Amino acid sequence: MSGTGVWLAGVRGSVATTAIIGALAVRAGLAESTGLVSERPGFPGGGLPELTGLVFGGHDPADVPLAKRAEQLAHAGLFPADLPARLHDDLAAVENDIVTGGAGDRTRDPAGTLARLSADIAGFRDRHALDRVVVVNVTPTEPPTPPRPEHATLAALRRAIADGAPELPASACYAYAAFEAGCGHVDFTPSVGARLPALDELARERAVPYAGNDGKTGETLLKAVLAPMFAGRNLRVNSWSGTNLLGGGDGANLADARAAESKLQAKGRLVGETLGYPVEGPLHIDYVADLGEQKTAWDHVTFQGFLGARMSLQFTWQGYDSALAAPLVLDLARFVAAAHAAGRAGPLPELAYFFKDPIGTGTHDLAAQYERLRSFAAGGCR
Amino acid sequence: MSGTGVWLAGVRGSVATTAIIGALAVRAGLAESTGLVSERPGFPGGGLPELTGLVFGGHDPADVPLAKRAEQLAHAGLFPADLPARLHDDLAAVENDIVTGGAGDRTRDPAGTLARLSADIAGFRDRHALDRVVVVNVTPTEPPTPPRPEHATLAALRRAIADGAPELPASACYAYAAFEAGCGHVDFTPSVGARLPALDELARERAVPYAGNDGKTGETLLKAVLAPMFAGRNLRVNSWSGTNLLGGGDGANLADARAAESKLQAKGRLVGETLGYPVEGPLHIDYVADLGEQKTAWDHVTFQGFLGARMSLQFTWQGYDSALAAPLVLDLARFVAAAHAAGRAGPLPELAYFFKDPIGTGTHDLAAQYERLRSFAAGGCR
Amino acid sequence: MSGTGVWLAGVRGSVATTAIIGALAVRAGLAESTGLVSERPGFPGGGLPELTGLVFGGHDPADVPLAKRAEQLAHAGLFPADLPARLHDDLAAVENDIVTGGAGDRTRDPAGTLARLSADIAGFRDRHALDRVVVVNVTPTEPPTPPRPEHATLAALRRAIADGAPELPASACYAYAAFEAGCGHVDFTPSVGARLPALDELARERAVPYAGNDGKTGETLLKAVLAPMFAGRNLRVNSWSGTNLLGGGDGANLADARAAESKLQAKGRLVGETLGYPVEGPLHIDYVADLGEQKTAWDHVTFQGFLGARMSLQFTWQGYDSALAAPLVLDLARFVAAAHAAGRAGPLPELAYFFKDPIGTGTHDLAAQYERLRSFAAGGCR
Amino acid sequence: MSGTGVWLAGVRGSVATTAIIGALAVRAGLAESTGLVSERPGFPGGGLPELTGLVFGGHDPADVPLAKRAEQLAHAGLFPADLPARLHDDLAAVENDIVTGGAGDRTRDPAGTLARLSADIAGFRDRHALDRVVVVNVTPTEPPTPPRPEHATLAALRRAIADGAPELPASACYAYAAFEAGCGHVDFTPSVGARLPALDELARERAVPYAGNDGKTGETLLKAVLAPMFAGRNLRVNSWSGTNLLGGGDGANLADARAAESKLQAKGRLVGETLGYPVEGPLHIDYVADLGEQKTAWDHVTFQGFLGARMSLQFTWQGYDSALAAPLVLDLARFVAAAHAAGRAGPLPELAYFFKDPIGTGTHDLAAQYERLRSFAAGGCR
Repeated sequence: MSGTGVWLAGVRGSVATTAIIGALAVRAGLAESTGLVSERPGFPGGGLPELTGLVFGGHDPADVPLAKRAEQLAHAGLFPADLPARLHDDLAAVENDIVTGGAGDRTRDPAGTLARLSADIAGFRDRHALDRVVVVNVTPTEPPTPPRPEHATLAALRRAIADGAPELPASACYAYAAFEAGCGHVDFTPSVGARLPALDELARERAVPYAGNDGKTGETLLKAVLAPMFAGRNLRVNSWSGTNLLGGGDGANLADARAAESKLQAKGRLVGETLGYPVEGPLHIDYVADLGEQKTAWDHVTFQGFLGARMSLQFTWQGYDSALAAPLVLDLARFVAAAHAAGRAGPLPELAYFFKDPIGTGTHDLAAQYERLRSFAAGGCR
Repeated sequence: MSGTGVWLAGVRGSVATTAIIGALAVRAGLAESTGLVSERPGFPGGGLPELTGLVFGGHDPADVPLAKRAEQLAHAGLFPADLPARLHDDLAAVENDIVTGGAGDRTRDPAGTLARLSADIAGFRDRHALDRVVVVNVTPTEPPTPPRPEHATLAALRRAIADGAPELPASACYAYAAFEAGCGHVDFTPSVGARLPALDELARERAVPYAGNDGKTGETLLKAVLAPMFAGRNLRVNSWSGTNLLGGGDGANLADARAAESKLQAKGRLVGETLGYPVEGPLHIDYVADLGEQKTAWDHVTFQGFLGARMSLQFTWQGYDSALAAPLVLDLARFVAAAHAAGRAGPLPELAYFFKDPIGTGTHDLAAQYERLRSFAAGGCR
Repeated sequence: MSGTGVWLAGVRGSVATTAIIGALAVRAGLAESTGLVSERPGFPGGGLPELTGLVFGGHDPADVPLAKRAEQLAHAGLFPADLPARLHDDLAAVENDIVTGGAGDRTRDPAGTLARLSADIAGFRDRHALDRVVVVNVTPTEPPTPPRPEHATLAALRRAIADGAPELPASACYAYAAFEAGCGHVDFTPSVGARLPALDELARERAVPYAGNDGKTGETLLKAVLAPMFAGRNLRVNSWSGTNLLGGGDGANLADARAAESKLQAKGRLVGETLGYPVEGPLHIDYVADLGEQKTAWDHVTFQGFLGARMSLQFTWQGYDSALAAPLVLDLARFVAAAHAAGRAGPLPELAYFFKDPIGTGTHDLAAQYERLRSFAAGGCR
Repeated sequence: MSGTGVWLAGVRGSVATTAIIGALAVRAGLAESTGLVSERPGFPGGGLPELTGLVFGGHDPADVPLAKRAEQLAHAGLFPADLPARLHDDLAAVENDIVTGGAGDRTRDPAGTLARLSADIAGFRDRHALDRVVVVNVTPTEPPTPPRPEHATLAALRRAIADGAPELPASACYAYAAFEAGCGHVDFTPSVGARLPALDELARERAVPYAGNDGKTGETLLKAVLAPMFAGRNLRVNSWSGTNLLGGGDGANLADARAAESKLQAKGRLVGETLGYPVEGPLHIDYVADLGEQKTAWDHVTFQGFLGARMSLQFTWQGYDSALAAPLVLDLARFVAAAHAAGRAGPLPELAYFFKDPIGTGTHDLAAQYERLRSFAAGGCR
């Protein structure tokens, strides 16, 4: 397969910028593919588009140049300081495929906005003569979306759009536009994205696959191996408390309690669902500007063993969120492109390994998710 | 199946005492089976002897009564203070099946000692008309065993025994005695146990199964889920440092640098073998008397992600080692008994889930080990 | 000095029960005075009433016997299980000096309630022919108290009481009753207590001393040494985040956001006031029922050193809040009694060492506070 | 005062390089004086030489240019990447005052080596027409020095030097050379330095002051506030365990068990001496190359409170050792210069605040040490 595009909604954000500069750096031989699951030694790669052949574009309301954003992130310690300069020409090329704006205008003219978004994506595909494009949402987390009648069926949604008053969050607009353009879609955030019955119907109608939600990059990744460990050993988890300190744009956005609510919902389900009983404990997401692009999570778990012995585990995870997320964005774009090429439509539960709140599957056990992913890849992402 | 005995070498130690009082408490309806893998809801139980039907005995050089040891452990917080009193009669019954002494005399009269150990085990089986007995070694960790000619073949070993001068550590004597008595064997410690070619030959000759080594109860349990997590995400682990603080008898024994060496060897292999490359970092085991029956492990891991971003994970595990180990001893006795009944002889790599340094298998991935155990149990431990 | 009484508002709570059983245990030779500052070897003791001579009584709305509460706390691990039984007679004697009820009825009949509270305290003093009594508030934390005209002067307060409608929180009622009875007062909680101008006026009128607020027992104790350490080394603290997990009655009460607000205000000031500039970072207090009488605090501090080097400190404090608080309650009662005997009236800033939010002093530096306390004691608490 | 020189033994090491580039950066207005105690707002500065007027030189066996070392350290994250280039000319000027070599040749020709070292220092002073020079030892930590007859008196030492066979470690040679050149001396390492009776005699003979030993920059700094906190509250510390993970040259040197021994001795005394009773617990220093210029210390403390309640504190300190040490080197040079100017000779116990193992004083309480330092400075370092 050749000619795969990745269209990033939120293309000037930290995650998207890191994904782009990373793919360019690997192509230029300036970096290794550490952090990409699909590039793990021995991982079955049949059918995946080449990492070095990906073409990038996207929407963003901001207009700060990508090269400038890359310099800021390098300064924050995310990658070597000289990388942006060494990739100057490549970044400038991507800049040409960035459309300033996005779903922000949707309330004024929904039908027009959606058509324009879709045309932007299709135009990118045509301009580069790409076989296909995967749209990835990495815009800031939205508050939870209350149910609406027009979300229930595609017909109702189309009527509401035609009437000029659909209640459609930005994340759902990008999914709509992707599907209308015949593209696969990934929601890397906890926003609603494609998770509306109307949009699922649209994806199936257009025979395109989609995946989500909310990339699993830190605290929840650890929960996904630790909770099954406790379950397997038949240890009783009594409480699981977590504090997440984030800087950067992500932290600032999540300082908004309503946006944080979506994140907390996505994070909160795993432990109880894995163990099969409710587990008490607070879960906080806090903005600490000084952390810059880093995040620090502290989790404290109390559990009981044989004869009621009381024990505890605590961990502190210190990482660069974008460095953890960016390679997964590239992985997901490749898997969704391959599934699209293999004829899959609708949700891809085989990609649960990547998500905090995976669509279409119940298990949160990371090892089981990994095995499912490996089988999927070995079978050509069919 | 009915009538299964568990013969514990080191029966008055913390782990054995907790295992016995725990099984008695579950039988009496005074405790739940938390911590037993074989009692996890939904776990395939076909073929396992009933937990409540197990009969206990063992060797120990000490002569402090089991009821007294139980009181000490209750005082240290391992289980409810009133449990020893409530199980007074049951503990007294087990006391009758404890033989003071053990392999300690072996250097003076090896052949006689081995025969006596074997007769003690067989006598226990006969006295209770048991179908079979599993011998479990929970004696203090021994220093590493240097290779010896008489360890290489059963014939050579028998000659050396007859000549009165075999170099046979205590742990190997218990394995020898178990096999000679026609019993399965578990080595829950990092000592050499049955891991001599001569003893493997004997186990096969007597058609008995065995399992080991070194129960995986804390830091290494965590490593067995965390190392595969890093590997799966293609993150590069640069260092993994660990400090283990232990009180109790186990800590005091491991304060002996030579004994600690065995433990460190068992603990140290997992990370490098799982990741496929060597990982630097010190690993300490220290005795801190004040911790009593508790242990505290701190691990510090540095790793690199995409574009070289430097990140870290640290965890602190605070637990009662015996509360973690005792249910696994009961699990293992049941699995080995079932395998024996099902006709298995020689090592049981299917039980790798329980061990730091599993015999006969390469993988340290806890999830893979768990799946193998479940399949084994579902298939009747054949 | 002889004959000192300690009247505890909230006498059946964890802190009060632990203080009483502790003083009784020391008197009976069953425990040491670990945790009492005033009993530290070499600490100047002149003028302090004997620890073993203290007489206890108090108010509490609950009627569960003190001996029963002591058993519950022993079961939770706060002190040896056999202590309540061994002190059975002494606890029964204290029980006779406990008045069920308290300030709960104040809104119906303020003047009557205040008179009754005061009479209860005076009656206790007379019954035991005590030289003096110190009233200590250890009732649950109240929400912050908004300013009211009747709080401004004693005359206004008396008028409002006479008119039957003072807005007087329970903690202030105990302070009022204490002062009216001619007793010193300690507020060990962040509630308003004696910190109303009208009550300060009353204390001076009656020539009695008082101290507060909010005992410094864990996270804030650590802040009081760590913040000066950073300041002394001229290191720039950029963020200080804290999560406090509490079980027990204290945790349950603080799960009420309004009550937690008082606590957070008391805890939050120290770092900024010590360093002289505002420091960002969230501060959480969460209820985790499983922790029982324990609390766990995790603090994460980021700071910058020479040439902007970015560094961090994190700590985890695991303790029994009542075991930390109870000896300080005894210390405070003794210091306030001695100050009363020495003729002091009004606030005692010399006792800042004990409080998160000390009355009448600006410094939060623990070492400076300790020196001031020592001088105060050496000078006879004058 | 004007014209003060700082002569660094080990001038190309991380600490010295950071101290030099830092002083140059402050002078050039490129950095603030964060981390310098003597520049803390409100700190009495009378008599201290200006930070921006210090002149640097030193000995080092290595010949890698200082500018190159600065680039390496900037790359490791110690300071901004562009700082070395911006200070290029200033660094080149210092380069002219660096003598390649040092005490390494002393065993071949002791008298000649000592005379040369002394002449190098005096030459530096004369070349820049400095009022005085302070020699600071920041060479790698040496193994403990066994007692020798020639260390006992200055006469014996001079005889042994004349005879060509003194057993004089490098650190002591720098102290000898400093004193002979009429200069004050600081030992920032745990090496023996000036702590030989013969050298103390020499310092008094030449009327020069000296200070040491072993800069207190991380784990021990925390111990110096936490141990007094426990003591003040009369809490019983039962164990204090510590693990120090270091990369960089310091870590590599301390991977040598004999050198680590000196460090462990300096670190180990504080807790027991502060509390007045021995406290168990292992103390490790380990080399983890991946940490680069960073170090991570984890300490675990168990303690008992009132009625025997068992509690714990653990902390993790993550810092750049050189960023913590370098400003203290500058502070110390300034304080010793001022003391020299004020006529002090012999040890300066007033500088205990800076050291793990302070000369001439018993207290390890950081707050008390700070007060003593402040008084000393306020009194003109007399």
